[in-house]
Amino acid sequence: MSFDRLISSITEKQNPTVAGLDPKLDYIPQYIKAAAYEKYGKTLEGAAEALFEFNKGLIDALYDIVPAVKPQAAYYEMYGWQGVRALERTVRYAREKGLFVITDGKRNDIGSTMEAYGAAHLGVTDIEGEAVEAFGADALTVNGYLGTDGVKPLLDICKAKDKGIFVLVKTSNPSSGELQDRKLEDGLTVYRTVGNMCENWGSQAPGETGYSSVGAVVGATYPEQLGELRKALPHTFFLVPGYGAQGGGAKDVAPAFDENGRGAIINSSRGIICAWKKEGSAPEDYAQAARREAVRMREEIISFIGEIK
Amino acid sequence: MSFDRLISSITEKQNPTVAGLDPKLDYIPQYIKAAAYEKYGKTLEGAAEALFEFNKGLIDALYDIVPAVKPQAAYYEMYGWQGVRALERTVRYAREKGLFVITDGKRNDIGSTMEAYGAAHLGVTDIEGEAVEAFGADALTVNGYLGTDGVKPLLDICKAKDKGIFVLVKTSNPSSGELQDRKLEDGLTVYRTVGNMCENWGSQAPGETGYSSVGAVVGATYPEQLGELRKALPHTFFLVPGYGAQGGGAKDVAPAFDENGRGAIINSSRGIICAWKKEGSAPEDYAQAARREAVRMREEIISFIGEIK
Repeated sequence: MSFDRLISSITEKQNPTVAGLDPKLDYIPQYIKAAAYEKYGKTLEGAAEALFEFNKGLIDALYDIVPAVKPQAAYYEMYGWQGVRALERTVRYAREKGLFVITDGKRNDIGSTMEAYGAAHLGVTDIEGEAVEAFGADALTVNGYLGTDGVKPLLDICKAKDKGIFVLVKTSNPSSGELQDRKLEDGLTVYRTVGNMCENWGSQAPGETGYSSVGAVVGATYPEQLGELRKALPHTFFLVPGYGAQGGGAKDVAPAFDENGRGAIINSSRGIICAWKKEGSAPEDYAQAARREAVRMREEIISFIGEIK
Repeated sequence: MSFDRLISSITEKQNPTVAGLDPKLDYIPQYIKAAAYEKYGKTLEGAAEALFEFNKGLIDALYDIVPAVKPQAAYYEMYGWQGVRALERTVRYAREKGLFVITDGKRNDIGSTMEAYGAAHLGVTDIEGEAVEAFGADALTVNGYLGTDGVKPLLDICKAKDKGIFVLVKTSNPSSGELQDRKLEDGLTVYRTVGNMCENWGSQAPGETGYSSVGAVVGATYPEQLGELRKALPHTFFLVPGYGAQGGGAKDVAPAFDENGRGAIINSSRGIICAWKKEGSAPEDYAQAARREAVRMREEIISFIGEIK
């Protein structure tokens, strides 16, 4: 099942990190933008071309040391359908390079509509009997506020197509506690309740590694909850955002892992893709700067969790 | 403020309904698909062209009697970036015809990313100092699981650009109660708690009609909760899905309205756009069949709530 593939790649590369591809124009070196604008003008199309070229350079520099990339849908949608085409090209290129692709869309809807999102991002779309892959990611982030109906269609696709989902449990943002930390009448928090739902949904799609196809998003900015959830949800693989730019460090994410160094993948977006700006290195060096930061991050995390078995 | 515009159009047309544009290929008359496939093949591009042409016919037949349309993003995303381009064309065409456009995307994320979604769907994207409208809807549906951080950037856009959001409170699907109906320690349900958050967020963006820029999604399939929430959230305008195909009737949605017949807009998607199939009318008559159903629905609802003042 799906996260088995991801886990095997993490183990092989001894690297439990995912590079977040959130390519704002501000992050992209001028020479890439200039080339794109020359072709397509200072338009959505030009911006989208710059996005893809930026991503392509990052993927080329990262694919042999990082198991996965996570494009954030919002940063493509803001450049219109042209940006969404850059998302599609990015997903396809990353998969060609053997990367596991997590589309971060936090999609959610009622069952019949969720089927459409599933087809879009993980499955195939039927066009008069022809099955066409619209985006073709390996995993999708999902918001579980609507309950089982909104997750069930994705479980079916996960089974049929060896894919995975990550359900928002405890998010990394400062106000995540407003609803997620509230306690229900039975004394469990909302986030723990949604976590338990993940564990339950996942029991329908178990994997050989012990982790199911239903993962959870748990923020690096809440290390205590990370530890609590790791213990409570032994079959739920974690996607952990909030490392780096949002303030989480390697020590904070250590509780996300099990005793074998498995159970989680840590995301860094700005930290990796803007490394060239932070380093003050030449724009032409942006992809290698990203690689250096990815290596540094890997070493930092491995120093806390040890070898991944 | 935003829902003032919608409310004024509802009052003018004496019609509190929104046509949901969820154009699956199965719903589209063969002659439209054949023309699109002839141009672009049985491809995502061909399918997307059929989607737009179908929508265009519906908009032409509905724009003088219906105040708003609600395209559901999932049904466009499943046809790839080409489908997302059909969404963009649909939003633009509907706005040209004077319709209020609600993009049903149920988007959600942390603050910095939510800014990107806001730019994408409600605001503008900056490209080297040029402000470009990527999609340009009037309102967006939003999932509030992440709390205030994930809503704040949209409130700013609502104020600056006269737009609105609808936050998921009590959704129409059968399993919505799994999380939403659970009671917190203070005795309030999760949905009521999120409803209260909407009322609070809305207080930062009040409108002249008494309704703020922050609306709520409350399903027609839960009439009791609709009534409870209408009383509890006097400044929160409701988007009510679940009428028709999902089982809600005019009697069920009546509690969503205030004593002036205001306070809510009722969505029908399949009921309207598939009316030609249900009627058994000729495919060429699909748009007029949609109009007949929209008129019937309007009359049915008005018979329960009376004149909209």
